[in-house]
Amino acid sequence: MTFTDAIAELLYGEQRRLVDAFEDYDGGASFRREPWRRDDLGSGTVCTLEGGRVFERAGVNVSSVSGAQAPPAITAANPDLVGKPFRATGISMVLHPLNPHAPSFHANFRFFETGRTWWFGGGLDLTPAYGYEEDAVHFHRTLREWCARHRLGRYPEWKATCDEYFTIKHRKEMRGLGGVFFDRLGGQEGDDFAEHRSLVADGLASVLTAYLPILDRRRDLPYGDRQRRWQLLRRGRYAEFNLVYDRGTLFGLQTRGNIEAILISMPPLAAWGYDVRPEPGSPEEDVRRFLRPHDWAGAEVRGPVEVSS
Amino acid sequence: MTFTDAIAELLYGEQRRLVDAFEDYDGGASFRREPWRRDDLGSGTVCTLEGGRVFERAGVNVSSVSGAQAPPAITAANPDLVGKPFRATGISMVLHPLNPHAPSFHANFRFFETGRTWWFGGGLDLTPAYGYEEDAVHFHRTLREWCARHRLGRYPEWKATCDEYFTIKHRKEMRGLGGVFFDRLGGQEGDDFAEHRSLVADGLASVLTAYLPILDRRRDLPYGDRQRRWQLLRRGRYAEFNLVYDRGTLFGLQTRGNIEAILISMPPLAAWGYDVRPEPGSPEEDVRRFLRPHDWAGAEVRGPVEVSS
Repeated sequence: MTFTDAIAELLYGEQRRLVDAFEDYDGGASFRREPWRRDDLGSGTVCTLEGGRVFERAGVNVSSVSGAQAPPAITAANPDLVGKPFRATGISMVLHPLNPHAPSFHANFRFFETGRTWWFGGGLDLTPAYGYEEDAVHFHRTLREWCARHRLGRYPEWKATCDEYFTIKHRKEMRGLGGVFFDRLGGQEGDDFAEHRSLVADGLASVLTAYLPILDRRRDLPYGDRQRRWQLLRRGRYAEFNLVYDRGTLFGLQTRGNIEAILISMPPLAAWGYDVRPEPGSPEEDVRRFLRPHDWAGAEVRGPVEVSS
Repeated sequence: MTFTDAIAELLYGEQRRLVDAFEDYDGGASFRREPWRRDDLGSGTVCTLEGGRVFERAGVNVSSVSGAQAPPAITAANPDLVGKPFRATGISMVLHPLNPHAPSFHANFRFFETGRTWWFGGGLDLTPAYGYEEDAVHFHRTLREWCARHRLGRYPEWKATCDEYFTIKHRKEMRGLGGVFFDRLGGQEGDDFAEHRSLVADGLASVLTAYLPILDRRRDLPYGDRQRRWQLLRRGRYAEFNLVYDRGTLFGLQTRGNIEAILISMPPLAAWGYDVRPEPGSPEEDVRRFLRPHDWAGAEVRGPVEVSS
């Protein structure tokens, strides 16, 4: 079994577990679970739920692709890989709740192998339409704790990477309140595959603990047209980020991947308005302070937590 | 008066005329007309209408920008311009009608000047959610006639350029049923500025004759939830094209232009669904045949129409 196969096995197992858990949690709609295979590209399983009680749209995808040449989305940041064959496997999930008070959640983990080199990338992040400090703190603390359980974990660094990565540059604002994000973890002589795998497995195990307590608090809050409209406008920003900047999306579009699977990250419904300016002091204006880098996990975090393995 | 100033004068005048005409035609809502100026960038006037009787959203923008270095969106196709200062002025309009039977319309014309070189680009295209042959034929014939009035006009070539340009490559389908599109017209020693200007002025004069007769036929057709849903899904494709491929949008985002002005091209509301497959034989499926290159103007068009000026 190659490294890629071992990670694919982990990811398909986590996909089943998470899809079952989200379906139970929703209690209204079921996931479609569709395996796909294309000889020229690879294979995967797309799991989607639409029109649920909690989730307006949810998607959890696993795919494994390979190619004779690493695509531009990879080689732009890794010019040494131009023209090299590659294998990649990844899991990606996006959940867009119906209630405007409940934030959208995104996570992905991916593994890339070329020749004798391999590395992991991934992260988790949260995108609210309305800001709630306790949600931001819970989310970031859960991620910090995950990182603290692993010698490889680097919460402050990965948080900063996430803040920067999930920035809508033309808006000068973050897509949401961040989370953690890392890329090209591994790839050095002597790196321990099992240790890296364990970090990622534990990251996937943290998905539900990071997200569900927040949904518990928000899923049934009352809302009306004003809140729904605001949610749709914020989702427009989400769509902007995904289509203009997101590396995973661009990788998928460039490799002419399974387009429907790649674009499950898109919001089910999104709006654009001209120069919309929320009233000063309104909750709609308040969310802006969540859309810039902030130490949500707490000021006591001063550096990477080193835990011997 | 520089060439750029002369074109800007033309475009601002056409903006006033078109905004007045669209507002009259709508009969329900008025345009906001907002001049803007940014010392580091340039200036412009944004005209937007939202929530009208005919138009859910309409925008007609004129802007003039300059910079010390041509941005990547320009130099990608014109590597000789890397590092050169430039001036650019352009008009861009996008109209998204409320009625799902009425197509969205887009046109833009732009003028680019660097050193002693100048050229024009632009075009007009139509994006229906439902296909009507008579609309497609009327639209393309109007554009063909415009081209036929000018020695510089190249309907078949510009139509083919438009078909190719407005293709959503990852979907292997066109954004709409095309129109005409040209780029870098001019730029050669001996090119006649006045003749080029006249072509563009006449293109702008063709906007209403190309579009309003189609709206007359579609604006009041009955529709329900099914048609609205389909319209929103098709608008999702529109958003995909604009954010992933459209050169004007990317130019604007890269130059950190007036973001609200640039993104008035976005649909007011758009939807994404997973693997939506319209019923065979339905009107929703039928529109697919409009989303690939087709000689709508009629088979008698065999080559460029040469009219002596």
